[in-house]
Amino acid sequence: MKGYEDREFNAGKDFTENTAEPHYIYQGRIINVRNDDILLPNGKPAKREYVEHRGGVAVLAVDENGYVPVVRQYRYPYRAHLWEIPAGKLEVGEEPDDAIARELTEETGLRAEKIERISEFYPTCGYSNEIIRVYLATGLTYVGAKPDEDEFLEIKYIHIDELYEKCLSGEIKDGKTIVGVLKYFALKNKK
Amino acid sequence: MKGYEDREFNAGKDFTENTAEPHYIYQGRIINVRNDDILLPNGKPAKREYVEHRGGVAVLAVDENGYVPVVRQYRYPYRAHLWEIPAGKLEVGEEPDDAIARELTEETGLRAEKIERISEFYPTCGYSNEIIRVYLATGLTYVGAKPDEDEFLEIKYIHIDELYEKCLSGEIKDGKTIVGVLKYFALKNKK
Repeated sequence: MKGYEDREFNAGKDFTENTAEPHYIYQGRIINVRNDDILLPNGKPAKREYVEHRGGVAVLAVDENGYVPVVRQYRYPYRAHLWEIPAGKLEVGEEPDDAIARELTEETGLRAEKIERISEFYPTCGYSNEIIRVYLATGLTYVGAKPDEDEFLEIKYIHIDELYEKCLSGEIKDGKTIVGVLKYFALKNKK
Repeated sequence: MKGYEDREFNAGKDFTENTAEPHYIYQGRIINVRNDDILLPNGKPAKREYVEHRGGVAVLAVDENGYVPVVRQYRYPYRAHLWEIPAGKLEVGEEPDDAIARELTEETGLRAEKIERISEFYPTCGYSNEIIRVYLATGLTYVGAKPDEDEFLEIKYIHIDELYEKCLSGEIKDGKTIVGVLKYFALKNKK
């Protein structure tokens, strides 16, 4: 960039880190943990700790009145209840586009005429390989909720404008919810 | 919500999961991994796997011409180079508001007159306790970059409008970058 030459560096350089030796520390139910021996671009050895995760899906389901189902559940890592859009993990071998219809119906009892992917993002790229896909679901019909017995959750409906305000104010803390809602409005305002 | 009573349930219920026995699986450099025995709200035992992380900071630094430094680095978990806003992990005992000025100068050589927090979010609340704080830095002066020797990274400058487009198109995949950029525009458009 003209005028910024002194501040820019390493344009286009290859920083690939190659695996010297993979080391599995832990193979769990929802995550595996690795601490690989790798080689830095300069050939020096280093370690890379990270989590393997199958990936997640989340859905912003907006009905004809602008209302959206949101889910409150206890998130043990934070020792707190959080409000989120409906979401779930991919099952083994499951495609994200199939998983999302399943999750939406399981958690909220809704079926959607149209489900489109509006974001695919890397929540915390330093130590996890998780990919979260966020969908927009419209044309909603209520077919009856069948929440899993082991899912302790609250469902309520709030207007998309109110949800947007809560994302901006910081009341909503969940990353996938913030990404989904802000992107929904950004795409809408572009049209 | 009136008209949604049949679809809403468990309003205000307490779903707290209590720790029966913490189990540390791994204590690493940037993450610890736990697989705790917990008690579900109904008293039944269960397991909770998750990662402990000290938290991260990220900064959208916008200069008087609307240009923003972005960083490209190799992210081993994805086996890919990613573009991100400057960011880093908290050091032991370090306050986020102190860490961010340090990270900005270390990575880009910039000092800022004003650094304000614009977001605090939970990137992947199902299996990590990480909190990412995103800051907006303005009033920038270039004081010379001192990139760490072991940080293999490219720095370039792009206009904030172009960065926004890349967040919307999906070219930018990094969650903290998407949250920071979309929130910056959402807050700006509100004023």
